Amino acid sequence: MGELDRPLLAALTGDAEIEALLSDRAMLRAMLEFEGALAEAEAEAGLIGHEAAEDIADAILAFTPDWANLAQGMARDGVVVPALVRQLRGAVGDPYGGSVHRGATSQDVIDSALMLQLGRIWPILDARLEVLDRGFERLIEEFGEQRAMAHTRMQAALPIAAADKIAAWRTPLARLRPQLAQGAKAMLVVQVGGPVGDRSSFDGHGDAVAAGVAARLGLADGDCWHTQRDRLVGFATQLSLISGVLGKLGADVVLLAQSEVAEIRLATGGGSSAMPHKTNPVAAEVLQALARHSAGLIGTLNNALLHEGERSGAAWTLEWLVLPQIVMAAGAGMRLAHELVSGISFADAGRGT
Amino acid sequence: MGELDRPLLAALTGDAEIEALLSDRAMLRAMLEFEGALAEAEAEAGLIGHEAAEDIADAILAFTPDWANLAQGMARDGVVVPALVRQLRGAVGDPYGGSVHRGATSQDVIDSALMLQLGRIWPILDARLEVLDRGFERLIEEFGEQRAMAHTRMQAALPIAAADKIAAWRTPLARLRPQLAQGAKAMLVVQVGGPVGDRSSFDGHGDAVAAGVAARLGLADGDCWHTQRDRLVGFATQLSLISGVLGKLGADVVLLAQSEVAEIRLATGGGSSAMPHKTNPVAAEVLQALARHSAGLIGTLNNALLHEGERSGAAWTLEWLVLPQIVMAAGAGMRLAHELVSGISFADAGRGT
Amino acid sequence: MGELDRPLLAALTGDAEIEALLSDRAMLRAMLEFEGALAEAEAEAGLIGHEAAEDIADAILAFTPDWANLAQGMARDGVVVPALVRQLRGAVGDPYGGSVHRGATSQDVIDSALMLQLGRIWPILDARLEVLDRGFERLIEEFGEQRAMAHTRMQAALPIAAADKIAAWRTPLARLRPQLAQGAKAMLVVQVGGPVGDRSSFDGHGDAVAAGVAARLGLADGDCWHTQRDRLVGFATQLSLISGVLGKLGADVVLLAQSEVAEIRLATGGGSSAMPHKTNPVAAEVLQALARHSAGLIGTLNNALLHEGERSGAAWTLEWLVLPQIVMAAGAGMRLAHELVSGISFADAGRGT
Amino acid sequence: MGELDRPLLAALTGDAEIEALLSDRAMLRAMLEFEGALAEAEAEAGLIGHEAAEDIADAILAFTPDWANLAQGMARDGVVVPALVRQLRGAVGDPYGGSVHRGATSQDVIDSALMLQLGRIWPILDARLEVLDRGFERLIEEFGEQRAMAHTRMQAALPIAAADKIAAWRTPLARLRPQLAQGAKAMLVVQVGGPVGDRSSFDGHGDAVAAGVAARLGLADGDCWHTQRDRLVGFATQLSLISGVLGKLGADVVLLAQSEVAEIRLATGGGSSAMPHKTNPVAAEVLQALARHSAGLIGTLNNALLHEGERSGAAWTLEWLVLPQIVMAAGAGMRLAHELVSGISFADAGRGT
Repeated sequence: MGELDRPLLAALTGDAEIEALLSDRAMLRAMLEFEGALAEAEAEAGLIGHEAAEDIADAILAFTPDWANLAQGMARDGVVVPALVRQLRGAVGDPYGGSVHRGATSQDVIDSALMLQLGRIWPILDARLEVLDRGFERLIEEFGEQRAMAHTRMQAALPIAAADKIAAWRTPLARLRPQLAQGAKAMLVVQVGGPVGDRSSFDGHGDAVAAGVAARLGLADGDCWHTQRDRLVGFATQLSLISGVLGKLGADVVLLAQSEVAEIRLATGGGSSAMPHKTNPVAAEVLQALARHSAGLIGTLNNALLHEGERSGAAWTLEWLVLPQIVMAAGAGMRLAHELVSGISFADAGRGT
Repeated sequence: MGELDRPLLAALTGDAEIEALLSDRAMLRAMLEFEGALAEAEAEAGLIGHEAAEDIADAILAFTPDWANLAQGMARDGVVVPALVRQLRGAVGDPYGGSVHRGATSQDVIDSALMLQLGRIWPILDARLEVLDRGFERLIEEFGEQRAMAHTRMQAALPIAAADKIAAWRTPLARLRPQLAQGAKAMLVVQVGGPVGDRSSFDGHGDAVAAGVAARLGLADGDCWHTQRDRLVGFATQLSLISGVLGKLGADVVLLAQSEVAEIRLATGGGSSAMPHKTNPVAAEVLQALARHSAGLIGTLNNALLHEGERSGAAWTLEWLVLPQIVMAAGAGMRLAHELVSGISFADAGRGT
Repeated sequence: MGELDRPLLAALTGDAEIEALLSDRAMLRAMLEFEGALAEAEAEAGLIGHEAAEDIADAILAFTPDWANLAQGMARDGVVVPALVRQLRGAVGDPYGGSVHRGATSQDVIDSALMLQLGRIWPILDARLEVLDRGFERLIEEFGEQRAMAHTRMQAALPIAAADKIAAWRTPLARLRPQLAQGAKAMLVVQVGGPVGDRSSFDGHGDAVAAGVAARLGLADGDCWHTQRDRLVGFATQLSLISGVLGKLGADVVLLAQSEVAEIRLATGGGSSAMPHKTNPVAAEVLQALARHSAGLIGTLNNALLHEGERSGAAWTLEWLVLPQIVMAAGAGMRLAHELVSGISFADAGRGT
Repeated sequence: MGELDRPLLAALTGDAEIEALLSDRAMLRAMLEFEGALAEAEAEAGLIGHEAAEDIADAILAFTPDWANLAQGMARDGVVVPALVRQLRGAVGDPYGGSVHRGATSQDVIDSALMLQLGRIWPILDARLEVLDRGFERLIEEFGEQRAMAHTRMQAALPIAAADKIAAWRTPLARLRPQLAQGAKAMLVVQVGGPVGDRSSFDGHGDAVAAGVAARLGLADGDCWHTQRDRLVGFATQLSLISGVLGKLGADVVLLAQSEVAEIRLATGGGSSAMPHKTNPVAAEVLQALARHSAGLIGTLNNALLHEGERSGAAWTLEWLVLPQIVMAAGAGMRLAHELVSGISFADAGRGT
């Protein structure tokens, strides 16, 4: 549920860089960015005064959240925004406290903040895929012309070029990388809808406010999408496909590194508390676990598409439980795949022929 | 497992048009198309003689499969191709029987046949999405300016335009339709790899054979992708997103058609064996069931990305069990959504205000 | 969706005996048994006359369903019962046609019929588990004292007794077999509730009618459980655990039968269309596919526990889509495991030491 | 994956009491208990000296883990035990450091520690189910005789007793509570197998050591079950069934509390940042989210039954990612259900009639 304090498991299956960008701290920072941009855009549109926007900006700069109060608000309201807005209004004080969050609803803040967070995460993942691609390139240069036994239906078949094995890992990722970028760019749209999504709470200035917020946050402008979760689930779907391909890499490496097969050697592996002679293909195993975990999660996230009415507490909470784990699994998988690929050697040429 | 004889359930949750294109009969036809195209392409490349290709073409035209023998072969070999090739070679007879399936492997036939089948299915789905879009358009024209109560977190919030509700169903489908087409086109690549995927069994003519087969079958030419299932799973993912959006439509309609809410009326609904006064929102309920079914299946299909080695019997069989159901769910969902949308009326303007 | 006509896949991953018991034909027979028992029990309770019950019994004996009309009814009503009851009332004719289905609702018929079907299936599965257990016993007798290499984290570790490997397959199944029986017996309760589940439609005789129906059908008597799907999902859960254990058997056999490992030999295996020297571990691969398929399905079935209100069309339809596949997967898995275990030989003693 | 620092989400969907028992800190404490019990049991069996066992016990009492080093070990070895054993041996020092973990393997420590943790958790869950049952009892006493509208297929049907609605929530939980206890008791077996599970590393004293460890830890004695995960998954399955039933409670409450239905009132609900007049049924929504999350996770956990060979790094890691979340979801669900049930009032008698 996100709150499990398991740093040891995180050291194996997590990813500190991605984790930091998905943390409550990062979320809160993004929420404050939204509130600041909203105030500016509303001042520009004439919905609130420029002095109000300035006071709000100042208060955000100096803001120190009362986390315990936020947690209480979250437990009570199902969203953290009412408590956060109360704190922020208090920080702004008279006369402009009431101008904070003007016309907006919790979902505007939460979804836009998520877009900011994912907008910071996907370029990291994109860059990791590029690095990983170069790792595969290096493998092909070094080992590509060696022969390695092909295995069909888990039986030795005939030797093929090691390059063919490597291509089976590399090509799908090379295909998925631009798809991920495309999905991310399509997704990164500001969320400004007001309580029921029709921007009526912005007194006729909704479109201008949305455009102003989008411009300030570096998000695309677009219609309110509060109940249209297809782009978000579609983005997660790309991540899950990547995790699945990395899972195949893991499965292949584990099989090729078996003692009896020994088609590849791993530079590093895990030790055993009881059998020091063993080198366990830890990263490759974890890639499989992350792929299957992500597979289950993407199934669950597809259930969250059934987002009933104009805001579904049930489907939205389900999304919160699942989506960050899919992002983390992809991030951790890329980290581990890089480590794995950096240490792979194919056995001597001729061995498998 | 595909063999359950449940025509009654099919009448509710199935789709006869899509079913026919996914049937064993359709698969076998596509497989024979592949074998014919292969023989022609191989004759062109000089791998077999033109007379052999002509005899094979003639035999395919006249071919009547021995289904019982195919089923036995499937049970024994895990794929139907060895038995089919034996039958087809027998049908061709001397002297060219041995030229059937020259250099190819079971997966070449099966995957290429699947591409042919999906290549016939997606335009149907695309056309249905277009029809459905017009259905939403009609709804907007007729009811879009009426007010309807927005419900956030399952509580009545404020009235919005009915057009906003309809847009929440229509817009995601309008977005997903071109994505589905794009995914389909990217996926529809011929599979020609030979036993271990490197086309070495075609004696240096593999690329020419692949190009020749692709041209004849109307598929794209490309590298062997036997272990790279990302495009296939990606296509299924688009279908599952569509099913999920249709599930939201179903959930919304069920909620709006509740006796106590009555924001929409349904032209037709199911009868009850005990309570004749009731009109059950059957199609809308089934849309939810199909969406959740598809969500689970897409999770399972992501597991099939872990296609180990150069051919995984386990992952491939899993794909066979799951993928057709995802296609069927999307097809049936579109059928039911069309029926549903055709019969929706929003309650009188002013009611919800 | 149950309607896919794929007999070839069924030959590999299906089970004809279980399939027959899950077919629409079997369902309809069970439904007619229910209607007959209901009439008798209601006659006994004085709700309808004895002559009516006799006429109904006679009509059921001679009844030939109009399948096309039933399919239309299913598509319209979401359940087949209204159409079936109309047909049956017509068959009974005057003056007692109206006494058919007196006070009952569709769910009474459908759920009770499902109990009859599952009540016929579980003893078959139980018997198969017993036969499978004897297969493991034979393996232990023949090979148990041989040494075989243990593999931890996919690396050769140290030799152990083959008996230890076999016990890892046998013991969980021996544990799950009585649990399955216990779950089945707890589940097999008659469903008699009437339209809203409180038996009020039986004019004060509901408990007597339920008891009478239960006695006649060989089901346990008990409260109406129409929205309480925990026993049904719990039973399916036991099946999925069994499929999972069989999946481990499949995974182990595939790994031990690898060309390079050769710890076990398989008496029979699948042929390849291109590589006649290969023997593919087909049954073991399919066991893994069925296990992962069942795993996904049981996740989906758990979603169907959210059976809202006094009857959820959405959750119930989802149950229909998923539950029979879980039963089939377990049945087919047992069939394949028996075939597999009957043909396993461990390599010569001493080899692995 | 477990490392996400999201205390705000935890405040809504988590459970502090269960979280503490699943934390790395609790795990480490349980691991040290195991190592202490192992040393004592081995001293009793004569495998190590009594002085060694005493020194180990003293070192454990005073032990302060180097968490950073443990995390490094986890990342390297895929399990934390090698690093922990090194630290503990260092803490014991000469001459008995080498007697720590004598003959055991990582899995013995990890699985036995998990049993200790789950052995502390299930009685809490059992007690919560008892309290929840009393909550339902109170509801029945207070409102049971009122009439409330039954809804079948999301349409108002006929009024029933509120007691019938409450029974649909209460009865399955009353049934699942003893099943959970039974499953827990069957599962709580010590894990002592040594590197390959056959206890050969204990020089003939393996059974005695296992019995001695079991007795000291309050676990049942039994055979090594390192690859037999059926009892563990079976226990999780019971939890998921409970979460599913709580999900139905949540779904029903949300529906009955709709503004237009108003069959029940909630004492407390969440506030909206934009619409102060609304009371959102937060706890009921979260119950649905947790149920669907758990449903997906139980599907994934069933995949972990495919625990290949004598120890599967991939399947085991998958188990670690998933199982604690299932436990947490059940715990949090019970917490929220109690809160929800404590605040439900059914509308005035007569209203729904």
